[in-house]
Amino acid sequence: MAAVDLSTHPGHLARRLQQAHSLLWGAMVSEETTSPQFAVLNALAEKPGIDQRSVGEQVRLDRSTIADVVARLARRGLLARVRDPLDGRRNVLELTDEGVRLHRKLVTRTARMNRVFLSPLDEGEQETLLRLIARVADAAEELRT
Amino acid sequence: MAAVDLSTHPGHLARRLQQAHSLLWGAMVSEETTSPQFAVLNALAEKPGIDQRSVGEQVRLDRSTIADVVARLARRGLLARVRDPLDGRRNVLELTDEGVRLHRKLVTRTARMNRVFLSPLDEGEQETLLRLIARVADAAEELRT
Repeated sequence: MAAVDLSTHPGHLARRLQQAHSLLWGAMVSEETTSPQFAVLNALAEKPGIDQRSVGEQVRLDRSTIADVVARLARRGLLARVRDPLDGRRNVLELTDEGVRLHRKLVTRTARMNRVFLSPLDEGEQETLLRLIARVADAAEELRT
Repeated sequence: MAAVDLSTHPGHLARRLQQAHSLLWGAMVSEETTSPQFAVLNALAEKPGIDQRSVGEQVRLDRSTIADVVARLARRGLLARVRDPLDGRRNVLELTDEGVRLHRKLVTRTARMNRVFLSPLDEGEQETLLRLIARVADAAEELRT
């Protein structure tokens, strides 16, 4: 049976895009901190004192992945688990000072990397790409709920 | 420092897109055969008798990943390593009959899954999305060569 042209398959292209991003991330942002780790640091920079599950939902990481990422960031001294002042039975997460510093550094580097990553496209095309990806991802995520 | 809005970050969106694809793949295509495995089956359906390294380059999988995928497909009886008839020192890869059958089945399922995956977009938007992703991925891949 005739093989398909994978260059027309969204999943193949999505994988190539993800691989391309990983390449640039390692080269321009960090070899120590992954982009999921950055997403968690960023979520806590925006909203300190939220619980692990909420962070996972916000950055779209499943429960086992978010547990791994949070554990790793805690071991690196970048975030801390603290008792929720409003509910002593819950733990919530906060960046440490080092976590705040690292987040700030990575924000600058990711901005630069994003510009390079999207530079083949003009501004309108960049906006279109991000918008269309978001629509497809949103719809697929809706399917699971 | 202000957190960034990750919904504007191409890498975050690329990860969400890849996760969305994995979800649909598992639900609609296969829980036994991954999309990289399918990509390899497909490359061999198109061009039987090529070597492992060429398959990896064609489907954009690095050397250790392609080695793992080929080994797994061989263990599953879906492809075989044979001596290159033109150069007895090389091994090349071929689908087994079972590999051909599985490939055929998956081609049908991936076509259906792709339609669902891209269904939030109209035809023009679908073409635009695939074209823009390809341009960004191509350019990033150029950076490594």
